[in-house]
Amino acid sequence: MAVKPIRVAMLGCGTVGGEVVRLLREQAAELSARAGAPFEIVGIAVRRPHKHAELGELLTTDASALVTRDDVDVVVEVIGGIEPARTLLLEALKAGKSVVSANKALLAEDGAALAEAADASGADLYYEASVAGAIPLLRPLRESLAGDRITRVAGIVNGTTNFILSAMTASGSSYADALEEATRLGYAEADPSADVDGYDAASKAAILATIAFHTRVTSADVHCEGIRNVTSADIAAAAGMGCVIKLLAICERLPASETAPESVSARVYPAMIPATHPLASVDGAFNAVFVEADAAGQLMFYGQGAGGAPTASAVLGDLVAVARNKVMGGRGPRESSYARLPVIPMGSVPTRYHVSLDVADRAGVLSTIAGEFARHGVSIAAVRQTGVGNGGAAARLVVVTHAAPESAQAATVAVLAGLDAVHGVDSVLRVEDLGRKGVAG
Amino acid sequence: MAVKPIRVAMLGCGTVGGEVVRLLREQAAELSARAGAPFEIVGIAVRRPHKHAELGELLTTDASALVTRDDVDVVVEVIGGIEPARTLLLEALKAGKSVVSANKALLAEDGAALAEAADASGADLYYEASVAGAIPLLRPLRESLAGDRITRVAGIVNGTTNFILSAMTASGSSYADALEEATRLGYAEADPSADVDGYDAASKAAILATIAFHTRVTSADVHCEGIRNVTSADIAAAAGMGCVIKLLAICERLPASETAPESVSARVYPAMIPATHPLASVDGAFNAVFVEADAAGQLMFYGQGAGGAPTASAVLGDLVAVARNKVMGGRGPRESSYARLPVIPMGSVPTRYHVSLDVADRAGVLSTIAGEFARHGVSIAAVRQTGVGNGGAAARLVVVTHAAPESAQAATVAVLAGLDAVHGVDSVLRVEDLGRKGVAG
Repeated sequence: MAVKPIRVAMLGCGTVGGEVVRLLREQAAELSARAGAPFEIVGIAVRRPHKHAELGELLTTDASALVTRDDVDVVVEVIGGIEPARTLLLEALKAGKSVVSANKALLAEDGAALAEAADASGADLYYEASVAGAIPLLRPLRESLAGDRITRVAGIVNGTTNFILSAMTASGSSYADALEEATRLGYAEADPSADVDGYDAASKAAILATIAFHTRVTSADVHCEGIRNVTSADIAAAAGMGCVIKLLAICERLPASETAPESVSARVYPAMIPATHPLASVDGAFNAVFVEADAAGQLMFYGQGAGGAPTASAVLGDLVAVARNKVMGGRGPRESSYARLPVIPMGSVPTRYHVSLDVADRAGVLSTIAGEFARHGVSIAAVRQTGVGNGGAAARLVVVTHAAPESAQAATVAVLAGLDAVHGVDSVLRVEDLGRKGVAG
Repeated sequence: MAVKPIRVAMLGCGTVGGEVVRLLREQAAELSARAGAPFEIVGIAVRRPHKHAELGELLTTDASALVTRDDVDVVVEVIGGIEPARTLLLEALKAGKSVVSANKALLAEDGAALAEAADASGADLYYEASVAGAIPLLRPLRESLAGDRITRVAGIVNGTTNFILSAMTASGSSYADALEEATRLGYAEADPSADVDGYDAASKAAILATIAFHTRVTSADVHCEGIRNVTSADIAAAAGMGCVIKLLAICERLPASETAPESVSARVYPAMIPATHPLASVDGAFNAVFVEADAAGQLMFYGQGAGGAPTASAVLGDLVAVARNKVMGGRGPRESSYARLPVIPMGSVPTRYHVSLDVADRAGVLSTIAGEFARHGVSIAAVRQTGVGNGGAAARLVVVTHAAPESAQAATVAVLAGLDAVHGVDSVLRVEDLGRKGVAG
């Protein structure tokens, strides 16, 4: 008996989509054996068909008609952005088509609507490719760790910014020079803002937090700072602490306290991590994500976070899953958001600060500064004071704090900047303890 | 409407089983929300009930009766070993009970029989916990990478031997001393042979190769060498090459040649890897596995490979998967062994050797030795000769080869050992290139 093929509609045929089409064709026999049914591409919606003439009859510019066609089982979306992707995928899901998407922005902004549409029609919704490219991450979090209690997901999920920070660390170059090099080598886009301002990582943080904590977290819930303001002085300050600076996406479960319920935090910012931490040695365009769970302990996932072929690998894994579900009956895991934990605002998140100040080199300055930290309820972990050779009139004071609410840390720094004894604030960086050795005091 | 519970029978209640029971109880509400149904433990088979008196009525010594009881949906097997586990799981699967097992020895020896029994009755068979403890590995290989072509899976999958080799590397201690320390600290069992002779890693290699290459590979197919013969001289020789020695489980896909079809290799032995490779910094009882696939590129998975709680995390993930399948309909992915690639014998596997020889320090010796390599068809990558201070009469000669069939490498070394000019063979080690920077010549 001939097995019915799984009929695939593609939305988009760029770097990733082109690789998906190529692999579906070149690996057809293997994929069929694994999925239990052959794949058949029945249509490819693109904006400029003349650029894909070799695809011939499969091409269409009418994406809306394609996604609801009777002869479509599954829609692969690799166009990115919110619209028209959202409307198209909602139409597809409502029509009972399963969806495989690589669209982090859409999933982070409106994943709930997609999940509800999938539930309503019984269709599958997979999006492994939306976070960390080829690295299997969403499936392990959603399925392998489904019996565990995840407490933290923290990692490097944007290759462009990691390339820039790696270059600044390796060569001492400025942010502007490193960005220019990244652009020249194709690691940064002409308009790099989605990467360097942290929005790309924030979308991924929202998706990761949603899955890890069984709680809907959207991109609007994610506190987001990019790397534009990271200076050579910051990099040097980190090196002086035995640390490096990485742009981290951090999703944390915060335990209940006497005054607050259990909550979650999702945030993106450049932070100091110890040079001995496994994430510190993740260089260039690679991604790596550290996961902590109560029973499993510490896990790390590492690999290529972007690019046509790696992202296509994740899309094809999801396509095989959709096909297996169709062949065997059943569905993939549904969105799990039962926990509904509150997302706390950034000001309440416990952070640690590393502050480097130019101060007057006279008696009482350290006392004044320490007093400001104390007044804000911020406990100091370590202080280091060195002369800066300015005729003995100035000194460099480095303060590393213990954890305290972000708002208290920020307020302290604001007050310090206005003190007479403080000539300037050279560098303010957060220090992340990622469950390994902390930063030396 | 009350949802029917998923009724669990446990086989074994030791370190891992005890953690599974604890977590099923302590996390009951969370697990129920994720699985879509509550879990209920209906029986626990143990050999010595008096050791588990707190489990009361649930205890039984009649495992055979338990696994086929009408009120059992899923059997969790954490007793290990081939029998009685095999008979019990086959009975359970034939009776339509799903199985979650942590039993690497059984899966590696007779996984096919279990998979066939599961297929025959439509039951689920999961065994994430059998390889690398808490690290999500089998599910990513089987599902996330289902659309990719995996070419290599290589890693550190035995914590005991990694602890011993790490200790030898860090302190220069002998194998015997490092083993003694591992035993004292509880990292090695009183009879350490399953670990130090490589059998544990070989079982895991068989399971990994089976999944990665869609080809049944059993433990009997895996070439296996342990670490008993690794000496301080080997460790020093590796360090001299900028390398460390790790016990590796290596599963490789070998391309077709003019004379041979595409094939696979599965093998376990201590090998030199560059100190800069991510696997090199995996110390102590941690596990890490490197995966290469055509589209995904290089991936690494890292975490705790053993222990009660980490292994229980993997078991619970599988239990949630079984429950979701029961609630949603459908089944987990079946064993995929369509490719049926031949497993080549160790003698045909391309390997690289690092040979350290004590030789007579006279003209013509290097030529003689190089001639033996050439005569066996082994090409030399690098030679380093140093005097050893023995009155000028002896020298140390280190040869690193290019890849050649293992049988040719071994035959060359056997001939060298018999040469007059060779006073002794200090160290023979394989060198693994793992897709990153190779060993410097």
